[in-house]
Amino acid sequence: MKLYETLAADIAGQIAQGVIRAGERIPSVRQTSQHHNLSVSTVIRAFLLLESQGLIESRPQSGYFVRRKPALPATPAADSVETPPAPAELARGGSIDSSELVLTTLRSINQGSVPLGSPYPDPSIFPWARLNQYANSLSRRVAQLGMTADLPPGNPELIRQIARRHLENGLAVDAGEIIVTTGATEALNLCLQAVAPPGSAIAVESPTYYAVLQAIERMRMHAVEIPTDPAHGIDLAALERAIVEQGVAACVVMPNFQNPLGFMMSDARKRAMVGLLVKHRVPVIENDVYHELYYGDVHPSCLKNYDSDGLVLHCNSFSKTLSPANRIGWALPGRYRAQVEKLKFLNTLNTPALPQLAIAEYLKNDGYDYHLRKVRKAYAQQASIMAAAVRRFFPAGTRVTAPVGGYVLWVNLPDGVLALELYARAQERGISVGAGNIFATGDAFQHCIRLNYSYPWTPEVEAAVRTLGLLTGELIPRATNCTPRKNAHL
Amino acid sequence: MKLYETLAADIAGQIAQGVIRAGERIPSVRQTSQHHNLSVSTVIRAFLLLESQGLIESRPQSGYFVRRKPALPATPAADSVETPPAPAELARGGSIDSSELVLTTLRSINQGSVPLGSPYPDPSIFPWARLNQYANSLSRRVAQLGMTADLPPGNPELIRQIARRHLENGLAVDAGEIIVTTGATEALNLCLQAVAPPGSAIAVESPTYYAVLQAIERMRMHAVEIPTDPAHGIDLAALERAIVEQGVAACVVMPNFQNPLGFMMSDARKRAMVGLLVKHRVPVIENDVYHELYYGDVHPSCLKNYDSDGLVLHCNSFSKTLSPANRIGWALPGRYRAQVEKLKFLNTLNTPALPQLAIAEYLKNDGYDYHLRKVRKAYAQQASIMAAAVRRFFPAGTRVTAPVGGYVLWVNLPDGVLALELYARAQERGISVGAGNIFATGDAFQHCIRLNYSYPWTPEVEAAVRTLGLLTGELIPRATNCTPRKNAHL
Repeated sequence: MKLYETLAADIAGQIAQGVIRAGERIPSVRQTSQHHNLSVSTVIRAFLLLESQGLIESRPQSGYFVRRKPALPATPAADSVETPPAPAELARGGSIDSSELVLTTLRSINQGSVPLGSPYPDPSIFPWARLNQYANSLSRRVAQLGMTADLPPGNPELIRQIARRHLENGLAVDAGEIIVTTGATEALNLCLQAVAPPGSAIAVESPTYYAVLQAIERMRMHAVEIPTDPAHGIDLAALERAIVEQGVAACVVMPNFQNPLGFMMSDARKRAMVGLLVKHRVPVIENDVYHELYYGDVHPSCLKNYDSDGLVLHCNSFSKTLSPANRIGWALPGRYRAQVEKLKFLNTLNTPALPQLAIAEYLKNDGYDYHLRKVRKAYAQQASIMAAAVRRFFPAGTRVTAPVGGYVLWVNLPDGVLALELYARAQERGISVGAGNIFATGDAFQHCIRLNYSYPWTPEVEAAVRTLGLLTGELIPRATNCTPRKNAHL
Repeated sequence: MKLYETLAADIAGQIAQGVIRAGERIPSVRQTSQHHNLSVSTVIRAFLLLESQGLIESRPQSGYFVRRKPALPATPAADSVETPPAPAELARGGSIDSSELVLTTLRSINQGSVPLGSPYPDPSIFPWARLNQYANSLSRRVAQLGMTADLPPGNPELIRQIARRHLENGLAVDAGEIIVTTGATEALNLCLQAVAPPGSAIAVESPTYYAVLQAIERMRMHAVEIPTDPAHGIDLAALERAIVEQGVAACVVMPNFQNPLGFMMSDARKRAMVGLLVKHRVPVIENDVYHELYYGDVHPSCLKNYDSDGLVLHCNSFSKTLSPANRIGWALPGRYRAQVEKLKFLNTLNTPALPQLAIAEYLKNDGYDYHLRKVRKAYAQQASIMAAAVRRFFPAGTRVTAPVGGYVLWVNLPDGVLALELYARAQERGISVGAGNIFATGDAFQHCIRLNYSYPWTPEVEAAVRTLGLLTGELIPRATNCTPRKNAHL
């Protein structure tokens, strides 16, 4: 048991015995650190673990409190049986469980915090009113359709609109290839299961979108993390070596506006990547959910444009462009179409009809392009402002990416500053950030954070970035803290 | 390759070469049977396979036609690579692929057929209008909530209403245990993955709900089929032997109004079953989606009532009682709660907010009980009428169940009559039936069909049942066809 796990178990014991009661504040990070003679970082990991277990909750400006309604006890009743092992090895050596950190981060966004750690776009920019109007007027018709009209592959009208949109963006797809899913999350999961059996090695970008790592773990595969350049994308030579030497069975990438780095692979590199994968007969899952959120003048190509072998499984969604809460995504699974359709059917049966039809109506009748131009302009502006604010408010040694699409900024903190510590201190001040730890299986990005700039730039957001900069300065190890304008080395 | 697969490949080749063109009728079952010197049954299996591959479609009263828009070609392009193997072994020895037959059955329901093979309840009995009204008035509020309000475990208002409903039905649950899912299908999948690793033996009823067999295959587990009495349920002695001798890791059952048999296990047998499983430390997944559709005076208990060890994972849904198209289900996963919540998050992230809130509002304000009383009364009446009609119109040797809840009837056809042949002939006449083949891994129920009686009894339904009876009579092997009032033996 790691130190932080022992500490978390101690505190859980105190809660169970009523030493600290529901609603009471637990001793602060600093107090606990001094009392137990443990590092601040260890204490923070223990608190995050307790929070993810539903035993404590953080309240902005106040610290951590014992939850009034704790989740079910983790320990079995006295006369009951042993708990069988968890189905997947979710905890990783040395790091706090990433899945739990992801959930904790998402939940913290609800609690009135400045949502810089959110993976979701600001909902205020979406055409909710129009979509709701369509849903309302369609609801009677959908009621009559019953269930079977929307069995996989999905609603035919939406599928037609998706095919048309792809065509407008330069990708001629057969509508018969499209499978509607419950968001891109389900599409990624189904495609991954379709292309490789358990035990497979899956090549991913490093850093990568955390849900990909989670899907790989869940299916008992393992991730092979390929170095990825913040401006140009995955290292193709390293990818080829991994394929040859480690028997990579499939690859998952985000060639456009990668989460978290924000780069776009060039057409030449996309083409080279598909060529490489076809040469080695390795299928690639392309997560292209930010496709429409480009800042330049032309929409990007995707890997699917260069694929004549059906080896690219393209995953996409309306969650980043139109309606996050409707959970409508799709897959173009190439030669794996039959398998993905079957898995969709087995996983969640059908996708609800009403949101599919409402989106189809919107795509048919409304100014999707006008809406997207507005979104792109806002995000491009906010990207510049956020990057400038980080450069201004954060201490020297901080580096930021220059995203060309999407809505997240990747920040390298000065040497010695742990993202998890910044995460915890920021949370106490009502600010959420995405800790770099969740974007890799190891600690490679423990000095990085991800910031969401989809929200309009307000004094509140600016103040939050300034606070983050101050907190980062406080976290620079003392030995070098007196020379804040130079890079600090541990 | 089996005979029917060879035949299907031949026909697919003719379609690919343009010998039979899109829109053209392919030779009938009888012609093909004579031409190739194959049994009618083999030809039907080949046609079903081609239909499930999207190459041909059946048209009521007309036969099979080459689809105008075929799905993506199953054969790769000339210069492309070998197709990697499918992820799971979905075809089963001797039988047509069950998953494909399930999908084909569901799709046939759309095509204007009398939907006796449908697994879904008649949508006309549900309170669509009220639910839509709630959804419409809630849609603005939901837009403001954004995404994070409905992360797993689900919308708190719906969770409260579910807990209250369980309490009214005699099951005191901690609201903190409830996890909202995309229908009961997702709940079953997540619970199964939570309790057992790949390779596990999973005990199921025989016959069982086909989605359970599909989930087991998908997770690379294997089903151990336990004899199940049409009136009393699973054979507990046989279950215990399977646990001891075959190392069963978990069990999936439907104690109330089992699909397809319609029985309810007695309270004593439910209690004994939980005791048995606790004794052997085997978790049980209880699929209780028909719970509210009882015909008697008191609502049934469930396995969860007798579980003090957290070993019962209860799965449920509103799809059979309120709104099939909304895809809202839930799980009470006992001691596996944390694992199931994490898997839900990984599988589809969140469940859309609007349908959750609309159902919560309905449960809070409207006459759910009144609605259910109406549904129960209708189904109980229709069960009697359907059973009487089968007894009247089907030949001697036919046996039917006496369901005490739910809305499906299980029919044992006379000896020698294959359900798949009846299925195919009925489809040509615009009638869908559920072939018994999909309810087991082997051929144990190839002489059975399932009939849905949730639709009001109309002359059209009666005519369809009469037609099924006549077709069944025609399918009785000739040697005994001259003595129709006695049981026929091959």
